[in-house]
Amino acid sequence: MTMLNEIINKTIDVEMEGLVSDLQTLIQCPSVSAKREGLVECAKILSDIMCNAGIKTEILYLYNNYSGSGDKKDIPPPVVYGEVRSKSNPNGPTILFYNHYDVQPEDPIDLWEVDPFSGKVEGNYVFGRGSADDKGELITRIKAVEYYLKNTGDVPCNVKFIIEGEEEIGSIHIEDYLEKYRQKLDCDVVIWEFGYIDANDRPIISLGMKGLLYVELTARGPRRDAHSSLAVLIENPAWRLVRALNTMRDKNGKILIKDWYKDVRDFTPEEIDIVSNEPFDEQGFKKEYGINKFLNDVRGVEAIKAYVGMPTCNIAGLASGYTNEGAKTILPAIATAKLDFRLVPNMVPEKQFERIKIHLRENGFSDHDIEVKLIHGEAAARTPVNDPFVKQVKESANEVFGTSIISVSSAGTGPMHPFVKVLGVPCISIGSTYIFARIHSPNEFSRIDLLNKMTKCIANIMNKVVA
Amino acid sequence: MTMLNEIINKTIDVEMEGLVSDLQTLIQCPSVSAKREGLVECAKILSDIMCNAGIKTEILYLYNNYSGSGDKKDIPPPVVYGEVRSKSNPNGPTILFYNHYDVQPEDPIDLWEVDPFSGKVEGNYVFGRGSADDKGELITRIKAVEYYLKNTGDVPCNVKFIIEGEEEIGSIHIEDYLEKYRQKLDCDVVIWEFGYIDANDRPIISLGMKGLLYVELTARGPRRDAHSSLAVLIENPAWRLVRALNTMRDKNGKILIKDWYKDVRDFTPEEIDIVSNEPFDEQGFKKEYGINKFLNDVRGVEAIKAYVGMPTCNIAGLASGYTNEGAKTILPAIATAKLDFRLVPNMVPEKQFERIKIHLRENGFSDHDIEVKLIHGEAAARTPVNDPFVKQVKESANEVFGTSIISVSSAGTGPMHPFVKVLGVPCISIGSTYIFARIHSPNEFSRIDLLNKMTKCIANIMNKVVA
Repeated sequence: MTMLNEIINKTIDVEMEGLVSDLQTLIQCPSVSAKREGLVECAKILSDIMCNAGIKTEILYLYNNYSGSGDKKDIPPPVVYGEVRSKSNPNGPTILFYNHYDVQPEDPIDLWEVDPFSGKVEGNYVFGRGSADDKGELITRIKAVEYYLKNTGDVPCNVKFIIEGEEEIGSIHIEDYLEKYRQKLDCDVVIWEFGYIDANDRPIISLGMKGLLYVELTARGPRRDAHSSLAVLIENPAWRLVRALNTMRDKNGKILIKDWYKDVRDFTPEEIDIVSNEPFDEQGFKKEYGINKFLNDVRGVEAIKAYVGMPTCNIAGLASGYTNEGAKTILPAIATAKLDFRLVPNMVPEKQFERIKIHLRENGFSDHDIEVKLIHGEAAARTPVNDPFVKQVKESANEVFGTSIISVSSAGTGPMHPFVKVLGVPCISIGSTYIFARIHSPNEFSRIDLLNKMTKCIANIMNKVVA
Repeated sequence: MTMLNEIINKTIDVEMEGLVSDLQTLIQCPSVSAKREGLVECAKILSDIMCNAGIKTEILYLYNNYSGSGDKKDIPPPVVYGEVRSKSNPNGPTILFYNHYDVQPEDPIDLWEVDPFSGKVEGNYVFGRGSADDKGELITRIKAVEYYLKNTGDVPCNVKFIIEGEEEIGSIHIEDYLEKYRQKLDCDVVIWEFGYIDANDRPIISLGMKGLLYVELTARGPRRDAHSSLAVLIENPAWRLVRALNTMRDKNGKILIKDWYKDVRDFTPEEIDIVSNEPFDEQGFKKEYGINKFLNDVRGVEAIKAYVGMPTCNIAGLASGYTNEGAKTILPAIATAKLDFRLVPNMVPEKQFERIKIHLRENGFSDHDIEVKLIHGEAAARTPVNDPFVKQVKESANEVFGTSIISVSSAGTGPMHPFVKVLGVPCISIGSTYIFARIHSPNEFSRIDLLNKMTKCIANIMNKVVA
């Protein structure tokens, strides 16, 4: 580690209160993209924090005349762009930090032990929706840049930021933004928005992401909820939905939709090598989720292979009829299921969506019996494991955390595919989120010790890419 | 029709505003038994209305020391008892009016066009939860007695009232109440709480009720909602629930649970005769519910037979995971289904419940995989079609409505079985509810013209049973 790093690290240690305070400010802005709430406001608050950090910041819209109206349904929320050009190394490499300021909905609200938008600090923890995903990650990037500027008046490499507001609903417009601002976003490497720290405090450097296809199935029955005594005469749409769902997946998790796995590319030998050596705390994982075995009873390397490279078909939501306490005897007018399918290279979301429609038809469910709506789709992506930036990021992480782990792909989804496609650069995920930090769940938290280390790690990366 | 009837009918016509006003007072008391809300308060308001009508009224509790606490979960809500002894005919027959003051929940609230607890009057309609079921029916009984007393200072026959607060959640304690107050409730015939008026304004006099078994199936997964990227490793309880449900019923409505139909008794020849001649406006019915065919495409007499005498298995509610707008990628911790099964004579609810548990086990779902909870069960009952009171009620209805229809059994459920078992008397359903009055649904209403006629009909029955 260089002298410069040591100075920066000291500043980071001293300034942690300011980091946490800015993170709380961001958490307190409930920017739930699924509800299209608070997005423009959050972008503005974020922009202020970035400006205060010394970053040249702009709020960008996709369509010029829509400025200021990004909370409206049909108008894409803005992205926040930031830039600092290195004085000492203006022609050196440029890192683009990709993050998002939107968060998942806070439901189920009654399971939170703190206000989800409070940013409450308890000991080493900051609680709140977005405390980890992704406001916690974002603040480590901003602060690494801020402390360089405050200590030296410069940054070792050029940095850019792109912070979007639709990641949690599938980054609907990120590809359009990348296309529109392609030149502005020109860079050499993307540091991805997110990364896990495992149960042994090792960062997992992930080189890929699964894709996602999110669909909603709807079955309709009588034109209003009917008295359930009529169940003998009126077809219940919830039964039809259950039958349709039951054709799609077997009890071991295998997806029964025709040709679902047809386009899946196998792991490369280099990927298999890494996957086979990935540590995985099977027992800790099971304990955390209160389960005693994995789906289909997979273990060891097979579990890791599945996690990294297997497509899924998941029921994210089911709703029909009366769901409150007690008994209500109705025959519901409507039944819906939200399904999310994780995709792997080289599955094409639009093609997989068509396969669902064909499957339902071939199983006797017309478009009228089960309506299928595409909520969103994005393809999977992977950065080659032998890219030189991968080595630099790993070395930076090792210096701060002692060790780190390379992963071929996260099991999660993000819009890595358009970044690779439009910008043509490697994308490397690294971040501060403890693996059991309850992201997307009640009582999400970030750990202050990990925020501290990741800020140091990002600072280290900025220094190392020019070495 | 007698002179006495004519006097009473005239009073009923003159006093309709008072009837509607008292009905509104009852509707404005949101006595939702599923939520255990407002029950004691509604019983008190009802008791006031009955006292004002000249009925000797008492609020009865099942356990003496629980008086006043009937909104608490584990304490049965009170029943309202009423009595008027005939001065002119004290040793003549006694009619027991059975009704209920509780209502179904108002959900889905956003589909109501009026406040469900307003009792808003528009032309011939009174809107609101309970306007028909059962506060509308109840007011016709009370007013028939009130107008006799106000005009003549007497009633032609002895009348008693038993008005309970748990009908919409399966009359959990009615049998206990009947046992406890058996002598007080001694009577010769029960006039049931409810009855439909068909699309041609003919009352349907129903002599039976289906039984009901209401169960909740619960599947549990990880101990909290998890990120759906984990769907490759963690079993999703919603999928397990879907698979379990799918084993229980085929697409034509046939229940696949072993021995489900074993105890069903066939129609008697007299019942078949009545069923075969029941009018049924198939087209009107389909139009009302916006469907183009019945389940399993049954038609004509087969549809009536099914409606009157076939068991059902209905999904009344399904819930799991994220059900709001947009996308949330979670693997839910829990999935539940509410199922209601309509039973026919001689199915025993407890026995059928055991059959469900055995079925699930035999299909590979342990008690741990799918928890099955009995919400409530009640058996079916039928009064013999040739009982002499049936004839008197039919004649009374014919004189007011011009004509009427006898039905072997309603497709709905009520606690007729304990009345027959404990009191040993015939139970005859007749009421003022238009067949498309949206009971249990948003925008429930009663028709003022039918409330008027049913009050006259009840008054006529009181006179005719002593003739």
